[in-house]
Amino acid sequence: LNSLLAATPTTIFTVITALAQKHGAVNLGQGFPDTEGPADIVQAASDALHDNRNQYAPLTGLPELREAVARGNKRFFGLDIDPATGVVVTSGATEALAASLAALLDPGDEVVLIEPLYDTYLPTVRLLGAVPRLVRLLPPERPEEGWRLPREALRAAFGPRTKLLLLNSPMNPIGKLFDAEELAFIAGLLREHDCYAVCDEVYEHLVFDGARHVPLMTLPGMRERCVRIGSAGKSFSLTGWKVGYVSAPAPLAAAIAKAHQNLVFATAPNLQRAVAFGLDKDAGYFQELADDLQRKRDLLSDGLRRLGFGVLPSGGSYFVVADLRPLGTELDDDGFCRLMTREAGVAAIPVSAFYGSPDAPRHLVRFAFCKREAVLRDALARLEAAM
Amino acid sequence: LNSLLAATPTTIFTVITALAQKHGAVNLGQGFPDTEGPADIVQAASDALHDNRNQYAPLTGLPELREAVARGNKRFFGLDIDPATGVVVTSGATEALAASLAALLDPGDEVVLIEPLYDTYLPTVRLLGAVPRLVRLLPPERPEEGWRLPREALRAAFGPRTKLLLLNSPMNPIGKLFDAEELAFIAGLLREHDCYAVCDEVYEHLVFDGARHVPLMTLPGMRERCVRIGSAGKSFSLTGWKVGYVSAPAPLAAAIAKAHQNLVFATAPNLQRAVAFGLDKDAGYFQELADDLQRKRDLLSDGLRRLGFGVLPSGGSYFVVADLRPLGTELDDDGFCRLMTREAGVAAIPVSAFYGSPDAPRHLVRFAFCKREAVLRDALARLEAAM
Ligand SMILES: CSCCC(=O)C(=O)O
Ligand SMILES: CSCCC(=O)C(=O)O
Repeated sequence: LNSLLAATPTTIFTVITALAQKHGAVNLGQGFPDTEGPADIVQAASDALHDNRNQYAPLTGLPELREAVARGNKRFFGLDIDPATGVVVTSGATEALAASLAALLDPGDEVVLIEPLYDTYLPTVRLLGAVPRLVRLLPPERPEEGWRLPREALRAAFGPRTKLLLLNSPMNPIGKLFDAEELAFIAGLLREHDCYAVCDEVYEHLVFDGARHVPLMTLPGMRERCVRIGSAGKSFSLTGWKVGYVSAPAPLAAAIAKAHQNLVFATAPNLQRAVAFGLDKDAGYFQELADDLQRKRDLLSDGLRRLGFGVLPSGGSYFVVADLRPLGTELDDDGFCRLMTREAGVAAIPVSAFYGSPDAPRHLVRFAFCKREAVLRDALARLEAAM
Repeated sequence: LNSLLAATPTTIFTVITALAQKHGAVNLGQGFPDTEGPADIVQAASDALHDNRNQYAPLTGLPELREAVARGNKRFFGLDIDPATGVVVTSGATEALAASLAALLDPGDEVVLIEPLYDTYLPTVRLLGAVPRLVRLLPPERPEEGWRLPREALRAAFGPRTKLLLLNSPMNPIGKLFDAEELAFIAGLLREHDCYAVCDEVYEHLVFDGARHVPLMTLPGMRERCVRIGSAGKSFSLTGWKVGYVSAPAPLAAAIAKAHQNLVFATAPNLQRAVAFGLDKDAGYFQELADDLQRKRDLLSDGLRRLGFGVLPSGGSYFVVADLRPLGTELDDDGFCRLMTREAGVAAIPVSAFYGSPDAPRHLVRFAFCKREAVLRDALARLEAAM
């Protein structure tokens, strides 16, 4: 069997979800909403099954979805993307990421990655024979502070063999939005070292407190270097549909399409058409989605803080990270998550699972707040009862 | 950009489909039915959108689909597969193949492949850093004969570094079913060299003339060595849905699940549930599907023969191969397909596109017959008018 995959554990999301089910726990682990996406989008997917378009979609996606992705790029971020040559529809953002990395990397190329990181990044880079260069964000000393980008360490990670940087903003698991200064610094390094960036921006619309997500692609000189990945699952609370999209300069999009051709080839037409419909929703829809999540973030964050957890700021995504140190527990994050699932009936994810090596911070736990308010209150009540 | 992908042409299916559209040609190129799959399966997919199950499916697929795949294995082929540990649902057979190869191959491993071959096989093997060993079937001297497996060449392709054989039966593009003797010979080589087989059996139910498809996995000693890939797209004439399934011994299925985790992660629940419903259809459905395609094969084959093409036998799949030599044309297969698309308004695929090197046979063209009879008649009339 492939030795890299054999050494890769089953994803923490599957492990914790199984544990949650076993113990009847409230699952604040795997990031998916427990309510459905908009009824009109679901109805559009249903309607689209019934008019004789159930055979292969085109390799790069249905024209109506590519056009809607291009309109969204323009409307929200001022980006001009040609729907004919600059968009590739994929079977979810995971496939978008795999196809983008397969398209851009040759064996031996170096990839700069920022820890903590999503759990498919490292195995995918390694499977392609590329070499990861990991840079760690600095976790806050005190919970109310944010994570910091260590600029000199980032600079030092770039070298003559660097092909690309993988940037996730808003960032899973920590809810960090990279700010204008950080993005400018990153863009400078990419220009200096003539590198690409693969930008995992699946939480582009899930940002809080009046902030706006800024795609790295919008910075000077970045238009030709960036591959921008979006996710219908996240933007429409329909994570099971697995419809993703890549926006990229034409030569990169063409290479990504070739990788997609060999990895999956195409994505279900009815889901593509429903997502195209969804992407044209007015700004109010996207604002309401973010506002609703922000209320949930606040509910959970306040509750965790009252229970004695340190609570780190979350500016976007489905997630908030809690610091265990103020609780005075002897357990590390993994032990705490297992105990909490079993004894309190609340599941969450140890942040150390988002690191490439065992010397990760061991005092942080990720909670998903993309759940109904009643569920979040139930989780808090369970924790209170157990603590 | 990745140098292997950069050297890989856009798939011939996309190229020919685009050419067909440009010239308003009848498209007998890309293999997809021009009628919809069963209305009750489509309705099941539609119904399944409306009961709050649109979030992530489990990594290896919904239990109801894994169980239906296991029942199908038993019912049609007598195979005992544990639905909990031996089935992985994928986003189509292309992903099933990519995940299976990624799970089994390490860089430097050798893979035995049989030409002509489906166009994702070689790039996927190479992208994983594995080394293809190509063995060519011998095209028939006279059209009415079948393709022959060169046993000594196949034996010679196996060696100490061979990890697996990729076997496609019923075989695209030539419609060959490997017979009992050939399968026994192949099984002997796998045992002798202690190798795996990845079996692309997407046309398992599309076999003609009263024959039955025999999975390599059913042969002695093969149960633990074979990965068997099926496709809802092909079995239910819904190629756009991209739902595939892998049946494998538990350790291989676990490795394939890990590859799937990084390539795609999961597949749309509503489509999975509809496919589970479809797989339980009675034997009459599958027989009728095959009988219908057999009538279409005959209609097209007879018509092509009347027009002067040599027509090779097709025992299964969507495809029949025609020999250009009896026409006395100066053109090679590629030139002929382009001329035929432009001048006659009928598109088909040059068989040389299914070879890894330019020294392929140049006198063979693949026609898809999975089209309405009126469309096949129209194609034949157009050819007659042009010839
Ligand atoms: C693909 S399952 C994981 C979902 C997710 O993005 C997360 O929980 O981080
Ligand atoms: C995935 S497009 C190609 C469809 C097909 O299997 C074929 O035409 O051979």
